[in-house]
Amino acid sequence: MTKTNPGNYFEDFRLGQVLRHATPRTITGGDVALYTAFTGSRFALTSSDETARAAGLPRSPVDPLLVFHMVFGKTVPDISLNAVANLGYADGKFLTPVYPGDTVTSVSEVIGLKENSNRKTGVVYVRTTGSNQHGAPVLSYVRWVMVRKNDEAANVPEETTPALPSAVAASDLHLPPALMFKDYDFVRGGSAHAFEDYEVGEKIDHVDGMAIEEAEHAMATRLYQNTAKVHFNAFERAKDPSGRRLVYGGVVISTARALSFNGLENAGLMLGINGGRHVNPYFAGGTIFAWSEVLDKADLGEAGALRLRLVATRDRPCHDFPDRDAEGKYPAEVILDFDYWAAVPKR
Amino acid sequence: MTKTNPGNYFEDFRLGQVLRHATPRTITGGDVALYTAFTGSRFALTSSDETARAAGLPRSPVDPLLVFHMVFGKTVPDISLNAVANLGYADGKFLTPVYPGDTVTSVSEVIGLKENSNRKTGVVYVRTTGSNQHGAPVLSYVRWVMVRKNDEAANVPEETTPALPSAVAASDLHLPPALMFKDYDFVRGGSAHAFEDYEVGEKIDHVDGMAIEEAEHAMATRLYQNTAKVHFNAFERAKDPSGRRLVYGGVVISTARALSFNGLENAGLMLGINGGRHVNPYFAGGTIFAWSEVLDKADLGEAGALRLRLVATRDRPCHDFPDRDAEGKYPAEVILDFDYWAAVPKR
Amino acid sequence: MTKTNPGNYFEDFRLGQVLRHATPRTITGGDVALYTAFTGSRFALTSSDETARAAGLPRSPVDPLLVFHMVFGKTVPDISLNAVANLGYADGKFLTPVYPGDTVTSVSEVIGLKENSNRKTGVVYVRTTGSNQHGAPVLSYVRWVMVRKNDEAANVPEETTPALPSAVAASDLHLPPALMFKDYDFVRGGSAHAFEDYEVGEKIDHVDGMAIEEAEHAMATRLYQNTAKVHFNAFERAKDPSGRRLVYGGVVISTARALSFNGLENAGLMLGINGGRHVNPYFAGGTIFAWSEVLDKADLGEAGALRLRLVATRDRPCHDFPDRDAEGKYPAEVILDFDYWAAVPKR
Repeated sequence: MTKTNPGNYFEDFRLGQVLRHATPRTITGGDVALYTAFTGSRFALTSSDETARAAGLPRSPVDPLLVFHMVFGKTVPDISLNAVANLGYADGKFLTPVYPGDTVTSVSEVIGLKENSNRKTGVVYVRTTGSNQHGAPVLSYVRWVMVRKNDEAANVPEETTPALPSAVAASDLHLPPALMFKDYDFVRGGSAHAFEDYEVGEKIDHVDGMAIEEAEHAMATRLYQNTAKVHFNAFERAKDPSGRRLVYGGVVISTARALSFNGLENAGLMLGINGGRHVNPYFAGGTIFAWSEVLDKADLGEAGALRLRLVATRDRPCHDFPDRDAEGKYPAEVILDFDYWAAVPKR
Repeated sequence: MTKTNPGNYFEDFRLGQVLRHATPRTITGGDVALYTAFTGSRFALTSSDETARAAGLPRSPVDPLLVFHMVFGKTVPDISLNAVANLGYADGKFLTPVYPGDTVTSVSEVIGLKENSNRKTGVVYVRTTGSNQHGAPVLSYVRWVMVRKNDEAANVPEETTPALPSAVAASDLHLPPALMFKDYDFVRGGSAHAFEDYEVGEKIDHVDGMAIEEAEHAMATRLYQNTAKVHFNAFERAKDPSGRRLVYGGVVISTARALSFNGLENAGLMLGINGGRHVNPYFAGGTIFAWSEVLDKADLGEAGALRLRLVATRDRPCHDFPDRDAEGKYPAEVILDFDYWAAVPKR
Repeated sequence: MTKTNPGNYFEDFRLGQVLRHATPRTITGGDVALYTAFTGSRFALTSSDETARAAGLPRSPVDPLLVFHMVFGKTVPDISLNAVANLGYADGKFLTPVYPGDTVTSVSEVIGLKENSNRKTGVVYVRTTGSNQHGAPVLSYVRWVMVRKNDEAANVPEETTPALPSAVAASDLHLPPALMFKDYDFVRGGSAHAFEDYEVGEKIDHVDGMAIEEAEHAMATRLYQNTAKVHFNAFERAKDPSGRRLVYGGVVISTARALSFNGLENAGLMLGINGGRHVNPYFAGGTIFAWSEVLDKADLGEAGALRLRLVATRDRPCHDFPDRDAEGKYPAEVILDFDYWAAVPKR
């Protein structure tokens, strides 16, 4: 009848279903410049073609998180247009570097379905793969979202909850094949801290704070061609108790990650996403602070890898490392708990 | 005396006068990325070089509306610095695709002059042509504006009102010569809807809403190097009854056009502008909604063309297709009535 | 102990100390597009590759002020993280044009140190040099900042105040070697005004006003990878009497410079920075106006050079050229007094 895409409801999904998402995306130097303007990211490897060349790469790779947002954005019209909440990420691996000029496409497979007991919603698990124009996968990750049902009486024929790793195994991380850090310039990188200098259990307060305005998150989220209504439709959001547009969680991740430069200067190349939760909503105007904890270390040969927990807050500096309590409850100011792997040069 | 450009007043224009506008503009991938960030446009042909190549083009063309804004912006200092109102557009044809790296220049010819009976203002009609660095015209359109007189007693020697077509004839539309849609990927395009699926008279509610902030329209309008004071001079605008900066009408057109993806997914290539009116002003912060009506269809051989009417509102969803009444009066929420042709793949 | 960069305090600096700053930066067409979106700059030479080619250059050079912001931004973490105030600039020379794709790095040498009598702060003078990937210097300038001491009792072993020129001598200005203006198109440039048309002592009101929003200056300053907390940390700034984030002074310079197109249309290539003071703070939302005074003229052979004083105000039009009084005191609306050289085609 109508030509407008109503999005999928919980009962529209089937286990094993494969969705080829619309809008292939050529990522350009323009996107990279905007990403810098949105985040202030200062990692040398993604800021300077010369630094990247000295590390064996043809030029600066596109920041893996920008690739993530581009791949993720394309899935929204098919996966989460009728979502109540984005529940989590797991098993994210950056498989091939993306360079300006590359075109990425997204495909998702439904790997889990679980109706909620209220029969009004269900949880959909998808594995999304981003690929480049040569068909090589650049990113693979799992996310799960709570999606509304259109018809409460509808049944989903087959349900299952997938087994997901609590973290990507170090042996599953992919360094760019050409990467070599033997001539890495730590001074130009921003600090003398090498892989050897970080200890498991170490906590780092990133000190700096960054406010994000309504125009900034909206421009970023449009750049990623993410169409979730909660970020853009101020008219509709005025009816929400908050009265505010919600900021795309990826904007919080990228802002906190850019802040983490202060203490993790040489950890500019994200390799994997172990998990992530948007613990509390973030609204424009608040100042984002962040701290990190070193969860694990792995020697990958040409480089080391740090498994890092990145915690972000709004309007609360992080010198005391605000964290969940013994019951797992987070302070109201904590907005993000994100777990990832990043490569770091060895000395 | 002064070195500052005072702009032209109504009595400064002459029929047949040709104005070569300042500031040639190289359009880059950076401009294209910003356009995506401003609009969230998702049309595959302008988003992906690979999609464009599969359609016979060397890479993604610059969105025709971005070309329009770039060409238009250059005319403001000579044509509409002393304008009271931008009255309309007609007979707009996109003649040659523009690619990143191309440099466009604008020239306008005065084709009509008509003093108003109050002798304080007059209407100036210009045909503006944008050309690329090879001298090939990329865009030609007519616009008319109401311009103040500097001296009410001044006379304009020759007046005329040009005859303008109510729409560009289908036979005057230019498909890019190399365009071929035989391998068009409708799934990656975003929907299965082909030329054959649209019917004259059909209306489509584009559902989604998009708020535009002060920073967003100002950045877009600066990018287009459009210098009209009403968009930027907040100090001066504070004296206006609205107290607000006016948003450049082209921002509304581009936002509504990007929203129209939802229902017109494969109509990404604009071919002509038949007409357009900014029915009511739009101020930043309002949420833009849009609906479309199929006015006409034409088979152009390699592709079909849809003549589409795009109506945009502020803070009013469009499920009931808000429209002018029998007297031609528009509801207060309607801000744009725009009429254009776009190419659509045939099945 | 901590991995976080605390920045340098006054007593940490030593005369002759050389600081290689972090984060080399490849400047791209994306950065250039953003600079246009932030400023609305319309100078033909930096807007159009074709105009640049007609002037003997390979393509449009990156606007020298954008190069300045990129080079300057990198110095902040080492020089001015603990700064109380940015006091001035001098002896700035643009030495080699920067083109998109070039990578710039920054190095600073401490050339002066002077403790203040309160022993709480001191003034640090640095000469900063930006170089491209071939090691060629692209920009050299001196700035001085007031920096806090960490330990009031600490002594600095050696103090000196450097002798600085009140202006760059015309013989020290560098035109791009290939530059030739014999075919310069004044119409496309925006006015007929050539070097010969400007007179020493002449004042030009640039008429137009430009408001800058919070999102705009923050995005610009992040793009420059300038990390000064006062621009971003809204939470901390709420405790300041102003309650507001401070706008990076470079944003004011670039906005005023773009406004100066209206009257200085063909003076698009900045050659040197003689001095500059941020006379009063600027907060987002105010409308910036500007006027210029021709301080000097020099014939450089292929082009002329104008020494220009650029004065910017907030929320005050400049038809009466607001200026300091006989005691050197500025009206509260004046925010910038900037002195520079720019190349202008001769007739």
